[in-house]
Amino acid sequence: MVTKGVKADVKTDDVVATLGEVTAARGMDALTARLEALQSLLAGDLAEVEEALGVVGLEGDTPAHRSARHLLALGGKRLRPICVALAAHVGTGFNEAAKTFAVAVEMIHNATLLHDDVVDLGDRRRGADTARVVYGNAASIFGGDFLLADALCRVQAAGVDGVLPHMLKTVKELVTAETLQLAARGKVRSSTSDYFRIAQGKTASLFRWAMFAGARAGGVGLRECEALEAYGGMLGLAFQIVDDVLDYAGDPDATGKDLLTDLREGKMTYPLLLAVERDPGLAVALEANCRGDEVSVTPEIARRIGRVMSEGGVVPECLTLATRMCRDAAKSLEILPSSPARSALEDVALATPLRRK
Amino acid sequence: MVTKGVKADVKTDDVVATLGEVTAARGMDALTARLEALQSLLAGDLAEVEEALGVVGLEGDTPAHRSARHLLALGGKRLRPICVALAAHVGTGFNEAAKTFAVAVEMIHNATLLHDDVVDLGDRRRGADTARVVYGNAASIFGGDFLLADALCRVQAAGVDGVLPHMLKTVKELVTAETLQLAARGKVRSSTSDYFRIAQGKTASLFRWAMFAGARAGGVGLRECEALEAYGGMLGLAFQIVDDVLDYAGDPDATGKDLLTDLREGKMTYPLLLAVERDPGLAVALEANCRGDEVSVTPEIARRIGRVMSEGGVVPECLTLATRMCRDAAKSLEILPSSPARSALEDVALATPLRRK
Repeated sequence: MVTKGVKADVKTDDVVATLGEVTAARGMDALTARLEALQSLLAGDLAEVEEALGVVGLEGDTPAHRSARHLLALGGKRLRPICVALAAHVGTGFNEAAKTFAVAVEMIHNATLLHDDVVDLGDRRRGADTARVVYGNAASIFGGDFLLADALCRVQAAGVDGVLPHMLKTVKELVTAETLQLAARGKVRSSTSDYFRIAQGKTASLFRWAMFAGARAGGVGLRECEALEAYGGMLGLAFQIVDDVLDYAGDPDATGKDLLTDLREGKMTYPLLLAVERDPGLAVALEANCRGDEVSVTPEIARRIGRVMSEGGVVPECLTLATRMCRDAAKSLEILPSSPARSALEDVALATPLRRK
Repeated sequence: MVTKGVKADVKTDDVVATLGEVTAARGMDALTARLEALQSLLAGDLAEVEEALGVVGLEGDTPAHRSARHLLALGGKRLRPICVALAAHVGTGFNEAAKTFAVAVEMIHNATLLHDDVVDLGDRRRGADTARVVYGNAASIFGGDFLLADALCRVQAAGVDGVLPHMLKTVKELVTAETLQLAARGKVRSSTSDYFRIAQGKTASLFRWAMFAGARAGGVGLRECEALEAYGGMLGLAFQIVDDVLDYAGDPDATGKDLLTDLREGKMTYPLLLAVERDPGLAVALEANCRGDEVSVTPEIARRIGRVMSEGGVVPECLTLATRMCRDAAKSLEILPSSPARSALEDVALATPLRRK
């Protein structure tokens, strides 16, 4: 656990340590050792990020500010700040600007989650009540608006060339993906190209920005920045696919999320689209159980999905795709000179399809 | 009516024409004539703004995009774009950058309205169903996010020095004011300083930005920009006070809003704070009728408020304050050389406390 300087009540999942546990359990000793090295490389940086996140919104004491602080204090994987930090280490290292970007990217991610939870009427996140349950929908809406506005001001103040315009473009992509995802809810027969368009905007775009911003903060040249951005985009997509698989095949105690939440919210993720492709009768059953945008998951539907996910080979197919994307991500780093940071990024990519929470 | 190039279904209140009607009815012939001149000065600019607003969000066809377009198509006073245009005319005139800022400021204003209507559970705005009634709360939340993100991208792309940082600071002020207003809801005994803090952030800040951005687009020097910003801040505050008075003393057919809406939503506006000061028993009655954040307005309460507003002199006192602020606004323009644009701004300030919708 990265806990130095972190308030005791903020439980960050140390995603690198978790990946290390998975690789160790699989006997992947070399990768495990490298992930341990990565963990110690990042420990100081992430402690600084946690400390900065711990004081976000303290200038206000309204339910909206408390909503934002509630969610941030629930921790999470902090994968986007990790991307910023590693990209900065490809250059001159983790400096003030990189720290600002690492904090800002996590704030923006959390801003989208606050709005998502109101939109999805989500009650639980990261194993706790959502901010909207504690402080109400209105506070969550303005809490999200506050995190976004504050994060943009911080990025602007950092004054690193090109990073703010890229951020604004990214926020628009994020929001556009949210509008598409909302429009696609309950549409059982959407296409995988819709899914990838949404995942690109919703997840990959912010990973791309994280890599770009960290690299720019570290003074990395433009050509290398492009490679790092490409890495971020691919890693983000793979991360999203694994996330969607965990909605069916994860351990709710580890993920802090009930199984089949996406399906209940009418979100047709990649594994579910493959499942419907393998078992066309499933689409009919889902449509019959669709009320408004939401799907009522009967025991029969849950069984049927479970069957096609394992016997129909959906889970392995998704993980194979995620693995291929992660390999491509690592491959895009080949133009960079060898360095501990580049190796660390390669290891994160290798380990991403293995995560179980 | 400014209708050239405007889609027939967009009803913009021509606020300048409306002010002209008021001044004409009061026999203020000189001001009426000048407002007519102002109207023709702005007609072309505002038609361009309407045309640009008419295609906002057309790149997407989701309920969130439709929410944004629904609200924009309901028109409104377009007072913030008018500020941008007049400030630009103080310099070299209304150019592409000024048009971009005029469109962006209206988009941001509408973004806050989309979120406000979800927060306040508002059903009617500008005499029509709110976007959340037509397309749902979720679409309104993302519709607001979209307008904000898109507007920021436009301001960035215009590339006028200093305008984007000022915008980001303004958005943070706006959101902070929203968080304060939400926290103050149902608090019958709030202070007038809380009110002014909220009004500064919620209304004056965007008027300030509109004047600044328009002036910068028109190449106005920094010292003059500051004067125009000061004007915008004062005009915005006065505008807000008049708006709050119209919640008690307006004509619902003209304003498109039921009377006492602010009070029902538990918002203690300036006139209401004065009313409570004049009639301390009113605070007790309001508190007794407060459920959660909302106030249930009984006929007895409505009568009591009506009495103190007129007999207690609350309405005249508010309008006197608004008039003083507008005079101060006009006075801050004294450092500018005489010009039709400066005269127009003075006339808008003179006429603002007279508006009835």
